[in-house]
Amino acid sequence: MSSPTLDVITIGNAIVDVLAHVDEPFLTENAIEKGAMTLIDEARAKEIYGLMPPAVEISGGSAGNTAAGIASLGGEVGYVGKVRDDQLGEVFTHDMRAIGVAFETAPSESGPATARCFILVTPDAQRSMNTYLGACQELDTGDIDPGFIASAKVLYMEGYLYDRPTAKEAFHKAAKISKEAGNKVSLTLSDSFCVDRYRDEFLGLIKQHIDILFANEDELKSLYEMDDFNAACDLLASHCDLAAVTRSEKGSIIVNGSERLEVAAFPVDKLVDTTGAGDQYAAGFLYGYSQGLDFTTCGKLGSMAAAEVISHFGARPEVGLADLAESHNLI
Amino acid sequence: MSSPTLDVITIGNAIVDVLAHVDEPFLTENAIEKGAMTLIDEARAKEIYGLMPPAVEISGGSAGNTAAGIASLGGEVGYVGKVRDDQLGEVFTHDMRAIGVAFETAPSESGPATARCFILVTPDAQRSMNTYLGACQELDTGDIDPGFIASAKVLYMEGYLYDRPTAKEAFHKAAKISKEAGNKVSLTLSDSFCVDRYRDEFLGLIKQHIDILFANEDELKSLYEMDDFNAACDLLASHCDLAAVTRSEKGSIIVNGSERLEVAAFPVDKLVDTTGAGDQYAAGFLYGYSQGLDFTTCGKLGSMAAAEVISHFGARPEVGLADLAESHNLI
Repeated sequence: MSSPTLDVITIGNAIVDVLAHVDEPFLTENAIEKGAMTLIDEARAKEIYGLMPPAVEISGGSAGNTAAGIASLGGEVGYVGKVRDDQLGEVFTHDMRAIGVAFETAPSESGPATARCFILVTPDAQRSMNTYLGACQELDTGDIDPGFIASAKVLYMEGYLYDRPTAKEAFHKAAKISKEAGNKVSLTLSDSFCVDRYRDEFLGLIKQHIDILFANEDELKSLYEMDDFNAACDLLASHCDLAAVTRSEKGSIIVNGSERLEVAAFPVDKLVDTTGAGDQYAAGFLYGYSQGLDFTTCGKLGSMAAAEVISHFGARPEVGLADLAESHNLI
Repeated sequence: MSSPTLDVITIGNAIVDVLAHVDEPFLTENAIEKGAMTLIDEARAKEIYGLMPPAVEISGGSAGNTAAGIASLGGEVGYVGKVRDDQLGEVFTHDMRAIGVAFETAPSESGPATARCFILVTPDAQRSMNTYLGACQELDTGDIDPGFIASAKVLYMEGYLYDRPTAKEAFHKAAKISKEAGNKVSLTLSDSFCVDRYRDEFLGLIKQHIDILFANEDELKSLYEMDDFNAACDLLASHCDLAAVTRSEKGSIIVNGSERLEVAAFPVDKLVDTTGAGDQYAAGFLYGYSQGLDFTTCGKLGSMAAAEVISHFGARPEVGLADLAESHNLI
């Protein structure tokens, strides 16, 4: 078994974000669930886009954002996700490679267009997401290259992948390869509605295969269907080795067996757009983990990366995170 | 002759901007002319994009930005420009219509893709632009609907259109229609290199057909090939009825016959990206002009709109300019 050459590989839905500012009535008038990630079909995608104000296009996708964050921190990172060979697919591919992410998943040459996520940001900086999965639906086990997957210390996957059966199979194949190579497997629960859709499967997966779990407070409570946060953390500790649970302005809790490490949130001058906060927390944590840093520092790197991304529009870092981490004496 | 129903119609190259932050050496190492708009072919477009860091896509195009600014101020505005029926063409079309711009130019169904402008923003907030004209090359006289053009009080055109002979013909056709309908014709010189390419033609055009000219200091000096700004303004006054000359942080000068009105620049907290400053100045000025406001107020509206756009990334307003103008007691 050769030693890993990449720090992290992330797998997820390859999506271009279409971001716009809207007011609260826009959400209610157009039946858009606030704060959630809702899957939509092509007809609804056309409808929502037709209603939306002028927008900005930025490459996104939860695990894609995490990969970009790890690269920005100076990590060696790869990505697996499916675009089509269209203009938005080119945009997504460019943005991954330009930041140094190894991204070689073959784009689909027919079928649905590259995925878009219509992200509506309200004045309170909350984001409401409507995702047309498009070409992401084509991701399958054929896209999982065993040599590539085995080359990373940590494999990181989105819970969102569970929305497509073929992507779920790809997810399981990758997890198996990573385990067999002696590497770590991590998962983000992605969204409390996503947890609701696949609760039993997620629980089984966490107990058996997941070394590091990422969740926010809502997702964790949804997973165990309980309101008691501390009790949920205790249950989680009995089910997986290591977990990082984010709690917005309350920071995060790292659950490591019986140990509970509290990490404060980083101060943010102006909260602009919460899109990507969880993705960047995972980026900071995983980068630190892959470098063998202590868990508190991993959590601080996560908080720092999350704070950077919520201070501007869009879900990927606008400044080099490595320099930022250095200025905070974190690396 | 029916009375105009639109305030302004703008005609220009319909372009999606691809914006990224770069450092100074990036420009020199890749032979990119700082501060200029350089036309590039498809091969160079691929090369530059391949070299660029992760980017953001935002609808742009000089006259398109001006139309968006006028709409944001509450003006009734139309736009003529050519995209292809591809994803970036959809993005451009959506962003125009979503802000209320009447945009009905038929997209081309074959030939080159929708135009892209690679905009590289250096730490000093200067932008260096490389434009692949793509589908813009297909704009011709057939795209000029006489009834539509005649419906606007003011016609506004980019000097950039002169880079394509068929677009130039379309430009002349539109100017003639507007004149015959008793409306005003305005022009922006666009870029000092553009002036250099078409100096004699621009001079002829200004003397004969242009009622309102927009230029910056460099463009004006290039037009008359003289360094004396005041002397250039005097010459300009002898050649066209009304002109607004922008001078970056020194504000603008409105040249109205023998009258010279100085308008101060608006204060900007943080200069982020100068892309679109001239376009938004024209938007503010033309909106005020179309509402019959005095020239100083027109200039102030221009300064205000320019200040908004240079305080953030991207060439179109991020906030409603009508509210902003009201808060400054300008409308």
